[in-house]
Amino acid sequence: MQSSGPFSVDRLIRFSDCDPGGIVYFPRYFDLMNALVEDWFYQRLGLDYAGRLMAQRQGLPTVHAECDFVRPSLMGETLTWTLMVERIGSSSITVNISAALDREERLRATLVLVATSLDTHRPIPIPDDLRQAVDTYRSECR
Amino acid sequence: MQSSGPFSVDRLIRFSDCDPGGIVYFPRYFDLMNALVEDWFYQRLGLDYAGRLMAQRQGLPTVHAECDFVRPSLMGETLTWTLMVERIGSSSITVNISAALDREERLRATLVLVATSLDTHRPIPIPDDLRQAVDTYRSECR
Amino acid sequence: MQSSGPFSVDRLIRFSDCDPGGIVYFPRYFDLMNALVEDWFYQRLGLDYAGRLMAQRQGLPTVHAECDFVRPSLMGETLTWTLMVERIGSSSITVNISAALDREERLRATLVLVATSLDTHRPIPIPDDLRQAVDTYRSECR
Amino acid sequence: MQSSGPFSVDRLIRFSDCDPGGIVYFPRYFDLMNALVEDWFYQRLGLDYAGRLMAQRQGLPTVHAECDFVRPSLMGETLTWTLMVERIGSSSITVNISAALDREERLRATLVLVATSLDTHRPIPIPDDLRQAVDTYRSECR
Repeated sequence: MQSSGPFSVDRLIRFSDCDPGGIVYFPRYFDLMNALVEDWFYQRLGLDYAGRLMAQRQGLPTVHAECDFVRPSLMGETLTWTLMVERIGSSSITVNISAALDREERLRATLVLVATSLDTHRPIPIPDDLRQAVDTYRSECR
Repeated sequence: MQSSGPFSVDRLIRFSDCDPGGIVYFPRYFDLMNALVEDWFYQRLGLDYAGRLMAQRQGLPTVHAECDFVRPSLMGETLTWTLMVERIGSSSITVNISAALDREERLRATLVLVATSLDTHRPIPIPDDLRQAVDTYRSECR
Repeated sequence: MQSSGPFSVDRLIRFSDCDPGGIVYFPRYFDLMNALVEDWFYQRLGLDYAGRLMAQRQGLPTVHAECDFVRPSLMGETLTWTLMVERIGSSSITVNISAALDREERLRATLVLVATSLDTHRPIPIPDDLRQAVDTYRSECR
Repeated sequence: MQSSGPFSVDRLIRFSDCDPGGIVYFPRYFDLMNALVEDWFYQRLGLDYAGRLMAQRQGLPTVHAECDFVRPSLMGETLTWTLMVERIGSSSITVNISAALDREERLRATLVLVATSLDTHRPIPIPDDLRQAVDTYRSECR
């Protein structure tokens, strides 16, 4: 498990990610961002993303998303995705995401995730283990 | 065909739009926004969205997207989607999109679309028929 | 509400349904079939598809699917989808689905759906109201 | 690169693969099958899946698909996917796909893929390099 610096994953642009114009369909990029957050939980924070949801009934929905799609990406390219934490609040985590082909930037995005109860869909305080893991991650990124 | 006021469509939240938390998975919302733009072309602007792409090799990819997901939406709800044009530039169109259940706002979003050649994936001037249709639409919305 | 003959829905092939080859990506067809089943529940059987799932914790997952994709479909075409019931068992319903452009067949498929408890993911007897609605539908199709 | 025995890939079941019932939404399984075929091309056959499509305008659409979904799969599980070639014809390749959690079978499927021209969407003879790669693969699986 990678243990210092920003969390980063390489991902192939698949046939199913692309539209009739031959480039990534932009909603799929958001899907790939969600996959990045998921991998960050499992592979770097050491937290069970699925278990929190199913067993503990804690959600982490996205309440704000924004993205600049700087250049189009083509099927068959392998992008490098990177996630940085911008801010952690009482219920929310703001992450900055970028994707690049080698050094050519393809997108930069910001997602705001909020910890919620799946029973009420209302915000809850960020659970201690998650806050601690995110704090550790931030210190490793400095 | 509706001919004055903002373009608006009602859409059922489907099983396939929702995640294991029982609410709409946020990338699907962007997919639904793309469908709204598509319907706006066919149903209100009177333009052949598919034909422009396939026959004329003109694309309209999204280069910027941002959205506030104000409240979660549940499977089985029917949201009312509305599209307004904020700005039309030399190559780009900025649209504001909202979705609501009755009067309860669920999201508000902004998309920046850019006219491109599918052969080069580079911006092109907005085609005259598109510019004219968008101008007419804007005047009908006032 | 349509009340005799097979249940049928017209649906536009969207940009998001199509792949870089310009035709419908085959997994999307299965997604469109699931939407057809959903519409059949709401619009013809008069049953609350979402409520059964969320409130009553009854699922209806697909345990077998097969499809012949007879001819490709293109973005911008509007297909007519039709659903017939082949068989209703103690826990399962077998449906035949077809999609066509005018009279030109595009696909024919069979899905086997099984009533389950969402708590155990095990089969349950088909609920009485569903069985009765399906029996009525079958008699209306004859 | 793995060079004998059936081609096999481990894949995490993601949040985005699952439905409000908490299990994999069946159309997503077909999407994952397509990803398996794609990986088989790149990683085992040594063929450029994207390049064939974009540069050579050769498609490989699925003309028949069938699947038994033997047991449901849950978010967070990692399934092992395996692909075997059943038959290679003049224009078509029939593959058998299975997915399992450890030794517990989750699904078995058959896809029939057909080589086509993307300009006409009509079948073409399977290109020589593809036929040869598939023949080699079959001999490595014996």
